[in-house]
Amino acid sequence: MEGEFELIDALARKIEKHRSFDGVICGIGDDTAVLGFDAVDTPRLLATVDLLAEGIHFDRHHIDGRSLGERALVVNLSDIAAMGGTPRYALISLAIPREFPRGYLEEIYTGLAEAGNRYRTAVVGGNVSSSKQGLILDVTVMGEVSRPVYRSGARPGDIIAVSGTLGASAAGLRWLSEGKGEDDVAGIEEHVGLCIRAHTRPVPRLKLGNLLSEAGATSMIDISDGLSSELNHLAEKSLAIMAVSAGQIPVDESASVLARRLDVDPLDLALFGGEDYELLFTVPYDLWSEVAESAERIGVGVSAIGRVFYGDEAGVYLETTRESRLQPLSGFDDYSWSGQITGEWATLRPGGWNHLRRT
Amino acid sequence: MEGEFELIDALARKIEKHRSFDGVICGIGDDTAVLGFDAVDTPRLLATVDLLAEGIHFDRHHIDGRSLGERALVVNLSDIAAMGGTPRYALISLAIPREFPRGYLEEIYTGLAEAGNRYRTAVVGGNVSSSKQGLILDVTVMGEVSRPVYRSGARPGDIIAVSGTLGASAAGLRWLSEGKGEDDVAGIEEHVGLCIRAHTRPVPRLKLGNLLSEAGATSMIDISDGLSSELNHLAEKSLAIMAVSAGQIPVDESASVLARRLDVDPLDLALFGGEDYELLFTVPYDLWSEVAESAERIGVGVSAIGRVFYGDEAGVYLETTRESRLQPLSGFDDYSWSGQITGEWATLRPGGWNHLRRT
Repeated sequence: MEGEFELIDALARKIEKHRSFDGVICGIGDDTAVLGFDAVDTPRLLATVDLLAEGIHFDRHHIDGRSLGERALVVNLSDIAAMGGTPRYALISLAIPREFPRGYLEEIYTGLAEAGNRYRTAVVGGNVSSSKQGLILDVTVMGEVSRPVYRSGARPGDIIAVSGTLGASAAGLRWLSEGKGEDDVAGIEEHVGLCIRAHTRPVPRLKLGNLLSEAGATSMIDISDGLSSELNHLAEKSLAIMAVSAGQIPVDESASVLARRLDVDPLDLALFGGEDYELLFTVPYDLWSEVAESAERIGVGVSAIGRVFYGDEAGVYLETTRESRLQPLSGFDDYSWSGQITGEWATLRPGGWNHLRRT
Repeated sequence: MEGEFELIDALARKIEKHRSFDGVICGIGDDTAVLGFDAVDTPRLLATVDLLAEGIHFDRHHIDGRSLGERALVVNLSDIAAMGGTPRYALISLAIPREFPRGYLEEIYTGLAEAGNRYRTAVVGGNVSSSKQGLILDVTVMGEVSRPVYRSGARPGDIIAVSGTLGASAAGLRWLSEGKGEDDVAGIEEHVGLCIRAHTRPVPRLKLGNLLSEAGATSMIDISDGLSSELNHLAEKSLAIMAVSAGQIPVDESASVLARRLDVDPLDLALFGGEDYELLFTVPYDLWSEVAESAERIGVGVSAIGRVFYGDEAGVYLETTRESRLQPLSGFDDYSWSGQITGEWATLRPGGWNHLRRT
């Protein structure tokens, strides 16, 4: 009992600084956290939670505690970013097995505290329990937003776009899990480092999320399960056809280098790999160039990868001929999806694609 | 993958009704829940989380899924009540072992949904993962409050009071865990039923919490770990001496009946048993009779059990002579704790007491 309280105190000290963040009226130390929530423009409360289980989502022999703590917060912040919101507060729920190394737990809280500082998100409470087997780390994040961007708002004619580059996280994970040695790394050290970092220390696109909310993005989602999966979510929620051009997907350069050594198609890493935590979004055609310029100004590259169409059924189509391009920036007279679009196409599902030819 | 989505859909249907609760702009189905948070009197956001792990906090062969779901929400609502707040929204995080019975999971959600209906708390999102071993059920609740009541506000001279009766939950738990049979129950069926119900289906004191916040309670906490433990929390946070009279603690009648058969002291159940989810609070002496009458009007009994004193060190003292009473309602000239108070006393710690005589 004493040990538990002592531990909680030690962990709480790691986030002492969060007590003085704006709006934290009462953080750890009472029955609940008490939080101010008064900002301009009647912002709405955003809330999201993500659970990481040892042996399922992470292996503590493959990730250090600090990165794990950072990651546990960041995956939630990425969800807040995907609504166009701003994170404010977090609650941490831990279930800890007997004999779990104390140092690793403290590292987790260091990672949480640092990420909280960096992204102005105050850890304001939580819960510590014991666990029969394996650490459980469950993080709730609350945020605010003036103009939420849902998955359901994509409209025919909209440009489909994505931030940053894709596939690096998946390449890093494969590299780690295949236990590549020094020989394999020779000559591509920098690329390997970038991909592993993309996997272990993802960055939430908070500023871009805010910008896209203000700029009038019609739908948005963060890429946690892979581009293909997220495109399908937007298509289903928006009841639309998403047509994407393989040649325009911004496959990460370092991921491409690793893919050659791993003998995989880099496009597969970008489409099905996941955990990029980039934003996938749609914007009205007329706003695209302005949005792209604004993103550039805050230092984030965005790429147009396709267009939204009307269709009998929601779905995602991929133009597979990498040399030819869907020309998403050129106009279409009619946004009805039909057999008149020529080229090589595939239907794209979360787990793979089915080739089809439409002529 | 399909099975997982199908399951989530089935679970989500259980809480379909929550989508239409006031303020739920977007519940399950997007990156985060989007929630209104505009009410009168600049209320503050309250947030709390509580994790239940199978094999640690519950045994699914001893509690049905519905009661477990209800309980998981209620223990959080009790924390909201203890701040004087009103619950609004909940997030549910589940980690589910392979081969876990599907029916039990659905029952959990039935219990969550019903409790959400009863206490006007909308389940607005969550997370479903897999688990290596044992179910994890982690519930976050957000609420609002105009005048939060902290643990730290008790002032010398205040009346210490508690709602309802204490010890029934602990008696019910002991009865269950000692596997008492039909012979033992004979003649006391009703008492056994009441105690088991107190344990498996606790009730959060939400209305009373609101009332006490409005009426000017100075400190408050819910009784989850036992009266003794919670008194110590109030004393430490308020930097005060809490002097309580054993004879005035409202020991539950049914608990007393079971205690005789279990051969335990009913007062021990009330002091150290826990999980009553009643409210322990302090109010200025002058407000006491008004507060007690108001509580009566909403159908909740409250009992004055002691007084708050100045002291060199925070601490809790118990007048153990059950026949004599501290007379908490009579005045004291001076609220300094000294050796001048006569009678049998004990220092009360969360886990037990140490007798001492002050003359």
